[in-house]
Amino acid sequence: MGNGGLFELRLVAPRDGWPQEKAWRNSSGADRILDAATVHGSVADAVADLHHVLATCPRPRHIIKPVLTARGAAAELRAITARGLRAGILFGPERAGLDNDDMAHADALVRVPLNPEFMSLNLAQAVMIVAYEWWTAADQTPPRELMTNETEVATKARLETLLTHLTAELDASGFLRNLPKRPGMVRNIRHFFERGEATEQEIRTLHGIVTELSLGRRQRGRVEAEIGGGPTSTADKGPKPH
Amino acid sequence: MGNGGLFELRLVAPRDGWPQEKAWRNSSGADRILDAATVHGSVADAVADLHHVLATCPRPRHIIKPVLTARGAAAELRAITARGLRAGILFGPERAGLDNDDMAHADALVRVPLNPEFMSLNLAQAVMIVAYEWWTAADQTPPRELMTNETEVATKARLETLLTHLTAELDASGFLRNLPKRPGMVRNIRHFFERGEATEQEIRTLHGIVTELSLGRRQRGRVEAEIGGGPTSTADKGPKPH
Repeated sequence: MGNGGLFELRLVAPRDGWPQEKAWRNSSGADRILDAATVHGSVADAVADLHHVLATCPRPRHIIKPVLTARGAAAELRAITARGLRAGILFGPERAGLDNDDMAHADALVRVPLNPEFMSLNLAQAVMIVAYEWWTAADQTPPRELMTNETEVATKARLETLLTHLTAELDASGFLRNLPKRPGMVRNIRHFFERGEATEQEIRTLHGIVTELSLGRRQRGRVEAEIGGGPTSTADKGPKPH
Repeated sequence: MGNGGLFELRLVAPRDGWPQEKAWRNSSGADRILDAATVHGSVADAVADLHHVLATCPRPRHIIKPVLTARGAAAELRAITARGLRAGILFGPERAGLDNDDMAHADALVRVPLNPEFMSLNLAQAVMIVAYEWWTAADQTPPRELMTNETEVATKARLETLLTHLTAELDASGFLRNLPKRPGMVRNIRHFFERGEATEQEIRTLHGIVTELSLGRRQRGRVEAEIGGGPTSTADKGPKPH
């Protein structure tokens, strides 16, 4: 309930009485929900001050009533509360669920659409899904966004500098020495790097990688040049691309 | 998992070994998931044959990675599997969650949007919500529909017959005797009855109610007429509306 921002709990004729110490032990800190819970003798009494009541129901039979998905229910409850009306959701006991008399108090039923070939939803899971839908019905989180934490997405100019750096080193290494193929190869490299929304920090790291890898090649080239006494220009070509 | 139509479970280095008898005892009959579960030494091994991996993560820090809502993740996974690619979702152990090395294997992270002031989602609840979103991403259940079971929504003509019956009895009872107000009263009654998508069965019941209530009034009228010896026409007016 707390996860979904629902904090008002009403209990109808609790089988083992109320309060029960184990409820507080198992509530993961949701004491305020339990402290404020009210106990009622009947469903009619529990819903008396509400304007709109939904009842969760796995497989209703012989009932003529609107049935909402959990998502449809959340949208409807948001609309109703936005009109200043008070709404509630009825959940049944763990195994038996709500009986037909209980459901008759509801404006509409809520049925969570799940795999009909393996449906085993307990009370806690039903509450979790309905509360989750209630919360997300008003949530503005974009479905996908790049989390960058301490850094920021780099501008295209910053990426361009990296690609210029990389291309220069690839030219120096000989990786791009096939001139007819060079433009296509450069473009394909760009396609990969443009795809990932590189951040400032990643651009710096990639500059470092290019510099370090090139440095290794150059130092080896210099060593080879010293040992073999050949021209530096040859050594600068570095390892062949494979 | 089964509720949401997810049946392939991969375990990475399970702390207490595998198989564990209590898993079968607590699975509510999802034996096929447990029977087919595979055990892997590392996340890298567990995801090796997949093309796309999402990792659930409550509060990622110091990570540059796309973050999806559970709903966004479901849509993305549906799109990826529709392309014939294999995808998986990583969940972390109960308390610690996934570590940074585990998350680094993922294409993107999944964070369930819930009440930031009371966030206490255990592993089972996280799996429930992600599986529920996976299922509903392909579910066609209308958000709201009238469940009529054995009966059907009545046509407007059937409702008209009922309203004609009701109006005639209300005329006979004197409820509509204020002629200037009569058209508005009839219209208001119609407004209420048109609202509820009455079914064939309910129309029959309502005809019965109107007939029975009128019959009671008429019989009482007859008795009163017999006792008082007054004209039947007066008794037919019945009780005054209040």
